[in-house]
Amino acid sequence: MLGDKKNKEKSLELGFGTKNYQKTVRFLNKDGSVNIKRKGLKGFDNIDRYHWLITTSWTNLLAVILISYAVVNTIFAAIYYQMGYQNFGGIAGYDGPERFLDLFFFSAQTLTTVGYGHVYPNSTNVSTVAAIESLFGLMGFALATGVLYGRFSRPKVALLYSDKVLISPYQGITGLMFRVANTKQNELIEVEASVVLSYSDPETNKREFESLSLEINKINFLTLSWTIVHPIDEKSPIYKVSTEELLKRDAELIILIKAINDTYSQTVYSRMSYKAHEFEENAKFVPIKQEVSGEGKISINLTDIHRYNKTF
Amino acid sequence: MLGDKKNKEKSLELGFGTKNYQKTVRFLNKDGSVNIKRKGLKGFDNIDRYHWLITTSWTNLLAVILISYAVVNTIFAAIYYQMGYQNFGGIAGYDGPERFLDLFFFSAQTLTTVGYGHVYPNSTNVSTVAAIESLFGLMGFALATGVLYGRFSRPKVALLYSDKVLISPYQGITGLMFRVANTKQNELIEVEASVVLSYSDPETNKREFESLSLEINKINFLTLSWTIVHPIDEKSPIYKVSTEELLKRDAELIILIKAINDTYSQTVYSRMSYKAHEFEENAKFVPIKQEVSGEGKISINLTDIHRYNKTF
Amino acid sequence: MLGDKKNKEKSLELGFGTKNYQKTVRFLNKDGSVNIKRKGLKGFDNIDRYHWLITTSWTNLLAVILISYAVVNTIFAAIYYQMGYQNFGGIAGYDGPERFLDLFFFSAQTLTTVGYGHVYPNSTNVSTVAAIESLFGLMGFALATGVLYGRFSRPKVALLYSDKVLISPYQGITGLMFRVANTKQNELIEVEASVVLSYSDPETNKREFESLSLEINKINFLTLSWTIVHPIDEKSPIYKVSTEELLKRDAELIILIKAINDTYSQTVYSRMSYKAHEFEENAKFVPIKQEVSGEGKISINLTDIHRYNKTF
Amino acid sequence: MLGDKKNKEKSLELGFGTKNYQKTVRFLNKDGSVNIKRKGLKGFDNIDRYHWLITTSWTNLLAVILISYAVVNTIFAAIYYQMGYQNFGGIAGYDGPERFLDLFFFSAQTLTTVGYGHVYPNSTNVSTVAAIESLFGLMGFALATGVLYGRFSRPKVALLYSDKVLISPYQGITGLMFRVANTKQNELIEVEASVVLSYSDPETNKREFESLSLEINKINFLTLSWTIVHPIDEKSPIYKVSTEELLKRDAELIILIKAINDTYSQTVYSRMSYKAHEFEENAKFVPIKQEVSGEGKISINLTDIHRYNKTF
Repeated sequence: MLGDKKNKEKSLELGFGTKNYQKTVRFLNKDGSVNIKRKGLKGFDNIDRYHWLITTSWTNLLAVILISYAVVNTIFAAIYYQMGYQNFGGIAGYDGPERFLDLFFFSAQTLTTVGYGHVYPNSTNVSTVAAIESLFGLMGFALATGVLYGRFSRPKVALLYSDKVLISPYQGITGLMFRVANTKQNELIEVEASVVLSYSDPETNKREFESLSLEINKINFLTLSWTIVHPIDEKSPIYKVSTEELLKRDAELIILIKAINDTYSQTVYSRMSYKAHEFEENAKFVPIKQEVSGEGKISINLTDIHRYNKTF
Repeated sequence: MLGDKKNKEKSLELGFGTKNYQKTVRFLNKDGSVNIKRKGLKGFDNIDRYHWLITTSWTNLLAVILISYAVVNTIFAAIYYQMGYQNFGGIAGYDGPERFLDLFFFSAQTLTTVGYGHVYPNSTNVSTVAAIESLFGLMGFALATGVLYGRFSRPKVALLYSDKVLISPYQGITGLMFRVANTKQNELIEVEASVVLSYSDPETNKREFESLSLEINKINFLTLSWTIVHPIDEKSPIYKVSTEELLKRDAELIILIKAINDTYSQTVYSRMSYKAHEFEENAKFVPIKQEVSGEGKISINLTDIHRYNKTF
Repeated sequence: MLGDKKNKEKSLELGFGTKNYQKTVRFLNKDGSVNIKRKGLKGFDNIDRYHWLITTSWTNLLAVILISYAVVNTIFAAIYYQMGYQNFGGIAGYDGPERFLDLFFFSAQTLTTVGYGHVYPNSTNVSTVAAIESLFGLMGFALATGVLYGRFSRPKVALLYSDKVLISPYQGITGLMFRVANTKQNELIEVEASVVLSYSDPETNKREFESLSLEINKINFLTLSWTIVHPIDEKSPIYKVSTEELLKRDAELIILIKAINDTYSQTVYSRMSYKAHEFEENAKFVPIKQEVSGEGKISINLTDIHRYNKTF
Repeated sequence: MLGDKKNKEKSLELGFGTKNYQKTVRFLNKDGSVNIKRKGLKGFDNIDRYHWLITTSWTNLLAVILISYAVVNTIFAAIYYQMGYQNFGGIAGYDGPERFLDLFFFSAQTLTTVGYGHVYPNSTNVSTVAAIESLFGLMGFALATGVLYGRFSRPKVALLYSDKVLISPYQGITGLMFRVANTKQNELIEVEASVVLSYSDPETNKREFESLSLEINKINFLTLSWTIVHPIDEKSPIYKVSTEELLKRDAELIILIKAINDTYSQTVYSRMSYKAHEFEENAKFVPIKQEVSGEGKISINLTDIHRYNKTF
């Protein structure tokens, strides 16, 4: 039975605790993010703010930039408006909303340092505020440069995992296997995988985590696809364990892949999780077609990564 | 007695020396900074300046930027003033402080490259100075961009440590334990801890440092909290050592935690220290509540990290 | 025969698969790039775009910048043109292409924030568009700063490999050897090499990959040149294998070199491949001349790296 | 005799070759730079240019920026001058040098995007050139930002080494020792040292390199000073070797120190070399004074690092 052969030495401390939840849980989401929320923290600080700016969508970032721009210009326009139009050169005499808009655009021209100059400050007070605003604009722009560079240079990896984990015949015995490929133009080198099985143990009433041994756990290049195989031999915790048993135990396969993106020599991490209902018994992956062009260039088609045949 | 079982092989060279100070010392402050001052160094150079700009508070940085801006503009205004108003277009004929202020704002408009143009240079001398000033402004701004990005991208970690170190029953024997959690939105992976006990040895009259073995010294994810446990068995240097003895020996528990912030694949370091008066005997940590929502999302409340009950 | 002594333990999983192509293939190009194309991927996304901007030639990058600049200005000019000339101050009354050009340059002056101001917006609509355009310009410029810095700071290495791999007498036995040198002004430290031989096996009809043992596989500094030697002894897979056999087996020598560029403490990777027709039997490298100046400075001439003499 | 006990296993391949120069050589300069020049390389390319911009002095960098600025403005001024003054608004009618200067400053105002606007382009040709120039200016400024950030963020370490290497009594036997300290405000952690002795061998007529074993080769913090000790016992290559012999053999002690600067989690490398004439026999380092303030803050004075007493 699952957990019988549990080898304490081999077990990996994943840091998810061993509490046995009464409900079905998922530790990792399909996109690799950790499915845990930490509450009771002190407020959002600069570290969290930068983290958000770096990881949010481009749409959110653009919205934040545009809204900040509008808000800052509105604030400065209000300050200028209160100082009175006689402090400005090149501004017409009428009052009210139109004046406010003129000052709003003067503010925008100052903040971005475009400074056409058809409107310009001609008193000490307004000049002081404008001098501060243009410095402020440069600082805000420096921040934006940092955020954009931070987003670009952040280590990223986009692995494609097969939809299913197959339990299929493999070199005389049975193997648990899934496929992975790099979807990006860059090359991944020194690619290392580790696979952990998590399941609830009704006897100890704890959540157990066991590391699964792999046929090969490191490859030099991930140029084609890689079929990661756990041989289900006598030493395997899932030896003679049925998929139904795995479902009942709320099993989760947690995958951690570490590689180096060789464009930037950056270490990148990919995480993935399969729940037991994504396991497929008696199935075999269809090999991914490889073609060689006349010049000896090898090409593969990654759309085939999910394809498998049922075997009986 | 403390130090009797000292294992020379296991002892860690921390780099704090072995001098036995007559007074009570603290090697690490509560915030992890090293409580040692190096004097007799050559002056503050560029490395130190950049270090200061990166590590100082935002308030200090803002003050430095504003003061530099004011000082640079004052210097350029003084240069322009001395050249005489006839070298400028668009400037009024009166003299004195008002003239100086006009040139101060012309300088600010040049430095930030806002360049409204209602005042402009119309002699070779002034044009030359203004050309240099605008280049200078761009360079200063490039520096500011670098500093801001450096501050943002600096590896940071904000771990929450329990207020107290508990000496409490643990798996039949006794354990020395404290808890730690990540307070930020990012994930910490490959988290490694090492714990060293420092104490004065009245016999050798030296300060000793001993590495304490840990139940588990590495976890894959720090998503919940981690209770770091040193089992106080026969091999432990504090086996049968009372808290009073530790106080008398001016004991300090030095904690080093190394992890990878997976947003940026950066290695981060956290340090912490407990002095003997922060040890609590016969106490047990209250487990941190975990809740599972309907969708299988686990949430924990980190405000409970410090909570413990006295046991008798 | 080649492959007879194949040691399964030693074999390196390169990640190139074991398919035996009927044609001659080359896994790595001479410049170290991987000769494999992954198709069927989802479209070019931001990761790929940044990768392209970072790795493309300077000419391509300049072209992209200039074309984007022209396109963006044309779009904004079209918007301004449609709004009508009465919304602008300082623009002449005539219509048509000349007007369009004037607005095109107004757009350029807004986008770059140069803002001379001889043309300026004087209606709310145009001011709004111009305010957005100048923000847009700053953002585009922030992107360009990020890309330029990304290109500059990308870990780069430029190793010079000898044209040929020699099979020549070496310490009593025979050795397979090639030379490598750093062509840049920076220093490479902790330099590690690994060499893999790939060949087709007609029996198993698979492509085999075998790691070749090296005399020395790590050096501390790559200041002079390094002759990397695989001793062809009884344990070597190419022991008593002729160059003709290697040619017939479509052999490829795959070289991976890892080093640290000590200017930036960056890990850099160099890859190279030799096909069997680049192997030279009975040849010996001519030592690279070293000279010592009066002040004890050693200098070498790297143009000699390819030179060898035939031996008979 | 030196080299008798040479242990081939232990010898480190430093990458300096084994050629025995007839003259006295120094592989590493006192500042840690490698004293080897590689000639016959292809011209200075972008990698070398960036390397130069990052590592040159601030004075050189400033000179390059100012000269480039002057040259670029002169080129654009010449283009504008040739186009004729009627293409500009706001420029006076006289010709010759004064005109050229006006256009030079117009160019500077365009390149820096300050754009006062008292001179402005009013023909298509000039507008086109000015639009390109302002884009060019922004790109140049982006480059400067990258270079400045690259200089700032480059891993740097400034260790202070004692002037002399002492050969002095140590724990019953004799030790070869020198001291090292961090001169900067940041903290160095995980500090590792390795020491290699290089000397010429008259018998084999080669240059030999031997790694010297150290009492402690890694410390956790370099907060105080670190005395690095090689015990001269029977296993040492310099056991019973006199300083005269070392001088005759043109011995050089090559020191490599690797550490992590914990402000940026950057790995930094320090190199240093001592020639035999910097060895001092029968001398003992004077301990560096440590003081503890009332609040338990420890302070040391690093000016004492070089101090030693002769012993007889």
